[in-house]
Amino acid sequence: SSTPPMSPTDKLPDLPPSRASQIMKFGYPGFDNLRTFEDFVLSYDRKTRTAHWVCEHLTPDRMVYVPDIDRSKCDFRPDESIHSYFQSQNEDYRGSGYDRGHLAAAGNHRRSQNSINQTFFLTNMSPQVGKGFNRDKWNDVEKYARKLAKKHLNTYILTGPLYLARKEADGHMYVRYKVIGKSQVAVPTHFFKVILYETSPNNFELEAFLLPNEVIPDETPIEKFHVPLDAIERAAGFLIFDKIPKGALKKVNGKSIGGFW
Amino acid sequence: SSTPPMSPTDKLPDLPPSRASQIMKFGYPGFDNLRTFEDFVLSYDRKTRTAHWVCEHLTPDRMVYVPDIDRSKCDFRPDESIHSYFQSQNEDYRGSGYDRGHLAAAGNHRRSQNSINQTFFLTNMSPQVGKGFNRDKWNDVEKYARKLAKKHLNTYILTGPLYLARKEADGHMYVRYKVIGKSQVAVPTHFFKVILYETSPNNFELEAFLLPNEVIPDETPIEKFHVPLDAIERAAGFLIFDKIPKGALKKVNGKSIGGFW
Ligand SMILES: [Mg+2]
Ligand SMILES: [Mg+2]
Repeated sequence: SSTPPMSPTDKLPDLPPSRASQIMKFGYPGFDNLRTFEDFVLSYDRKTRTAHWVCEHLTPDRMVYVPDIDRSKCDFRPDESIHSYFQSQNEDYRGSGYDRGHLAAAGNHRRSQNSINQTFFLTNMSPQVGKGFNRDKWNDVEKYARKLAKKHLNTYILTGPLYLARKEADGHMYVRYKVIGKSQVAVPTHFFKVILYETSPNNFELEAFLLPNEVIPDETPIEKFHVPLDAIERAAGFLIFDKIPKGALKKVNGKSIGGFW
Repeated sequence: SSTPPMSPTDKLPDLPPSRASQIMKFGYPGFDNLRTFEDFVLSYDRKTRTAHWVCEHLTPDRMVYVPDIDRSKCDFRPDESIHSYFQSQNEDYRGSGYDRGHLAAAGNHRRSQNSINQTFFLTNMSPQVGKGFNRDKWNDVEKYARKLAKKHLNTYILTGPLYLARKEADGHMYVRYKVIGKSQVAVPTHFFKVILYETSPNNFELEAFLLPNEVIPDETPIEKFHVPLDAIERAAGFLIFDKIPKGALKKVNGKSIGGFW
């Protein structure tokens, strides 16, 4: 091409940061089978046929209501970027008794029809108990995250499934989870959601939620599901928002923290 | 520096291929937490605290006996390159009833003391039933791989743990496995070993073994554990030796295959 070579003193043009780098500002928990969608980033676990994690970035201006955007135009569909051996299918969920539960919530991605459409890829779904969980308490946690996002400068949300060990009758610890359909999609025992929000420039608060994938009584307050962040990290096998600068995090689960992080 | 710039017509020096690229010649199953050791390559699963897979490359000249190399000088030790949250420890295995079973077999890496030492990192261990499995039938499979390696030009071995679903009394499929120790190291339900060997230049045979992690009667022939390669791939969540050129693979589990692969 005819572009002249840049001299070392030329200033680089100020390109806007990519959406993915905005979303992932505080670190990738891992790099396994990344899917970079228009408005969220996902790492897919080909063994369980659901995600390792999904990361979102919300801001007040992104939370405005766009009347044209219509959830009812969206279809749950397999993600054909994944090798056929490892895809989940709508048929896996049919008759299983589980909802196709969104990890990145559809309601967080209403700025374009393509953004909300992409939340309906089956890579963004996990088998969730419907009534009492997906449609109720888990939805409360999603709504709480949106409430925070409307009030704060930047909100980052990391969401994912977990498969926690329990003590069985023999006194030993076991991981046990159901798998559904021909693709053997794993039914997580729990889901986590970690919300990091910027309350004033470079000051952050974090809330870490861990909920069992089961019917949860409506009267249970969501704060009852606060857990230490490292409980999620150890079970998940990855670190969460580990690039937060030292000292920038002021509160965890509503409690002020000292200089340590 | 004073090195003159290369002109496009200069020939690049003939560097020997890196050991890792030799070992991984037929493709990486994945790139999660790679550990490139002197004589084998490992991908670590921080969630289960054991490997996803381990890959080895053996040749007849590498299988010679070096009398100085001494297995009894080796110590099982934690792999401190892994974040402390996700390491396994010797204490996790103590009193568990399970052996620290090698994935890359110590006996395959006897050309230098450092090579064999590195097979004793706990990242290369999985909890294995000792008598009747690690010390017996699984060892038979390892010895069979070495026998093949002594006879053929190049032998590639991919080994790893699996966690297979089973039907329970309620008619549904479940994955269930024990976890041991404070680190909750997963006890795999099965182990696989896939052996790819070059019988003449660019002609290959493959054998895929899948064994339950349990006492196996001595009289069971190892061929009884042959399975189709895709059975392992689907359960593992990755593809195995998928860079074998079309047509180069002549036999799978002792049976000639057609032009299809
Ligand atoms: Mg939902
Ligand atoms: Mg062994």
